[in-house]
Amino acid sequence: MSNVKAHIITIGDELLIGQVIDTNSAWIAQHLNKLGIDVVRRVAVGDDRDAIWQALEEAILKPGVVIITGGLGPTADDITKPLLCEFFEGKLVVDERVLDHVKNIFAKRNRPFLERNRKQAEVPDNCTVLFNKMGTAPGMWWEEEDQVVVALPGVPFEMASIMENEVLPRLAQKFNSDAIEHRSVITAGEGESFVAEKLQDIESALPLHIRLAYLPGSGMVKLRLTGRGAMKEQLITDLNLWQQKLAERLGNIVVALEDIPLEMILGKWFLANKVTLGIAESCTGGYLAHHITQVMGASAYFKGCIVCYSNDVKESVLGVKKETIEAEGAISEKTAIEMAQGAFRVLKSDYAIGITGLMSEGGESYKTEVGTVWMAVADKDNVKTKKFWFPYDRVRNKEMAVSMGMLMLWKFVCEFKS
Amino acid sequence: MSNVKAHIITIGDELLIGQVIDTNSAWIAQHLNKLGIDVVRRVAVGDDRDAIWQALEEAILKPGVVIITGGLGPTADDITKPLLCEFFEGKLVVDERVLDHVKNIFAKRNRPFLERNRKQAEVPDNCTVLFNKMGTAPGMWWEEEDQVVVALPGVPFEMASIMENEVLPRLAQKFNSDAIEHRSVITAGEGESFVAEKLQDIESALPLHIRLAYLPGSGMVKLRLTGRGAMKEQLITDLNLWQQKLAERLGNIVVALEDIPLEMILGKWFLANKVTLGIAESCTGGYLAHHITQVMGASAYFKGCIVCYSNDVKESVLGVKKETIEAEGAISEKTAIEMAQGAFRVLKSDYAIGITGLMSEGGESYKTEVGTVWMAVADKDNVKTKKFWFPYDRVRNKEMAVSMGMLMLWKFVCEFKS
Repeated sequence: MSNVKAHIITIGDELLIGQVIDTNSAWIAQHLNKLGIDVVRRVAVGDDRDAIWQALEEAILKPGVVIITGGLGPTADDITKPLLCEFFEGKLVVDERVLDHVKNIFAKRNRPFLERNRKQAEVPDNCTVLFNKMGTAPGMWWEEEDQVVVALPGVPFEMASIMENEVLPRLAQKFNSDAIEHRSVITAGEGESFVAEKLQDIESALPLHIRLAYLPGSGMVKLRLTGRGAMKEQLITDLNLWQQKLAERLGNIVVALEDIPLEMILGKWFLANKVTLGIAESCTGGYLAHHITQVMGASAYFKGCIVCYSNDVKESVLGVKKETIEAEGAISEKTAIEMAQGAFRVLKSDYAIGITGLMSEGGESYKTEVGTVWMAVADKDNVKTKKFWFPYDRVRNKEMAVSMGMLMLWKFVCEFKS
Repeated sequence: MSNVKAHIITIGDELLIGQVIDTNSAWIAQHLNKLGIDVVRRVAVGDDRDAIWQALEEAILKPGVVIITGGLGPTADDITKPLLCEFFEGKLVVDERVLDHVKNIFAKRNRPFLERNRKQAEVPDNCTVLFNKMGTAPGMWWEEEDQVVVALPGVPFEMASIMENEVLPRLAQKFNSDAIEHRSVITAGEGESFVAEKLQDIESALPLHIRLAYLPGSGMVKLRLTGRGAMKEQLITDLNLWQQKLAERLGNIVVALEDIPLEMILGKWFLANKVTLGIAESCTGGYLAHHITQVMGASAYFKGCIVCYSNDVKESVLGVKKETIEAEGAISEKTAIEMAQGAFRVLKSDYAIGITGLMSEGGESYKTEVGTVWMAVADKDNVKTKKFWFPYDRVRNKEMAVSMGMLMLWKFVCEFKS
């Protein structure tokens, strides 16, 4: 069977009033995709009997996979399990293995086991129970010839654990699909239209089984080639060829040929070149350091960061001169340079970046326009500075500044690498 | 007209293959909710003509509001605008105001204006054009007696800007709905079942127009009361009463009566008490400082942070003793204490927190179990320490550690406030 389609149904009022952002769907889609299963539709409904029932009926009409998440917790606002049981005409029975597991979790946490927790161990008698080693609510699997329906808890790491250990292996075995492969070309410094214009003829020449998509982000445009075919080897050859054509055409705006974040691109470079990084950040408040340390193994090249939110920390820890701040302002080219040089010296790193700016109104009243950010990147011989201006709100300005800081660092190391 | 229902349709292959997480839907839901408009269903489909058409037909059958996001960019994978034009039987024409705006944006960015950018200024001739001051693609509004259909670009800050400036004011005027109000009670330190058990009788006694939902998070359970009614004043009185009942019953596990993040709860306290905070963090890599600086005005109480990712930074910047690291390890109670005391001294703050731990395998090989984190909170007279163990992956362990760090800080200031 090829071209298996999947529907995702997410259940929970918290999704519909916007209190929670649905990260599960993206995770599930990514992982189904690797099995050659395409998600064609995602539906989110509230903790409402009729809405859930309708979403189930719509999804179940079509052969393929239905993944349901959410609505399986122990509290009264969760109505999904009894409904699923009714929908599939089963009967709720206590599963002894799950019951032991739930009791065990409560014992370990020194919490009393309550009657309502026993309900966590109830499952429809006509489903395969999917063990949840990360939490109390088990997953459930119903299967017919051309269809699989899976219900999972909505807590993201519980969902992911059951998917990885129980669902994905079973799906891989059941459906022997077309291969789907993706290739990426990550560009920086030009807009979506510019990139599209450059690629127009290549895009028109793409074969039918390969599609190109543009994903614009902060200062970057990601290009994604998606191919599908019965012959995996051939598909990979084709995709690599088209990826190479795109990359050659785009030249030096290409920063990577895989869809990994900039912090990982930087990380690979620092690791390969056996050099270290130090950061001094003010307005970005630790967010750049956070990005750098999201990469596993960052301790091999990342020395540390001084978040110098107050001016006296800029002076006392980083050695920024009092006169510089008084004469030029805390948000100035000179302060950024002294911050980078301070980080370089205090953290004893090979490269350093300094970021200072004003992200939003309020707090201190600098004589600077909101959104202004100065950055400086330095190694032992060189220093580069750049002034940015971001027009958004605090949260987005911070994100933009961190993206631009990483890009600036990347361009610097590309230019000055020994 | 009361009880207006809304459907959200998000369009884009990037959502279905999981490359992008849909944050727009949550934002839209929150803002519609404040107008008394309930989102009852969200559907995500790919850049696929039939799927988009079907989603439109399903949504359009019911009176209310349909918000469509995505699929309006300048590149070839965006097919939504012509389709919408066909669906509503209009004709694409160039809007001169939009064209001027788009040209202007390209001129400002020093980018050539390309023929494909002219398409950005095309709109169906039978819709109201919604001006997009944050980007090039305009929004579109179709209206009939009992229905509004709005199409918006998918870039989150462009969508939000058009919603705030164009869509929400128009919707508020058109629909004069029931009021919907929410009240929250935020608890920490107990699980969902424990909280639910404590509230069982109160929950059963809730009137029909008020619902209670449980939203478990990292070490916290958020309770949300949702009420709806024609009389806003009465509704607010009722909700406040029930909120108070919940809070009284739950006693000292309540940390806030509004749904704001812990960093904001902390921020309010530090601001009100005119005291300052310093951070020394190792394994959390700047992520705690990032949280603290997400709060507008944090510069009034946040001095800064030393991200001491390498041991020599722990020693040279924070003054952690070499002997401590050698004898006890970098991840130990004593190191956490010396880090907190170092931050206290170096950053000259009234309170300080030190966090050291091992988030994942790889990098350095400490003699410590992965997931172990030691934290210390200190003021001039007191120090408290705690050992944590987080069983998840790197990203989630980091998130848990930051949540727990903020909770520990909160408990400390509650206990030792003067």
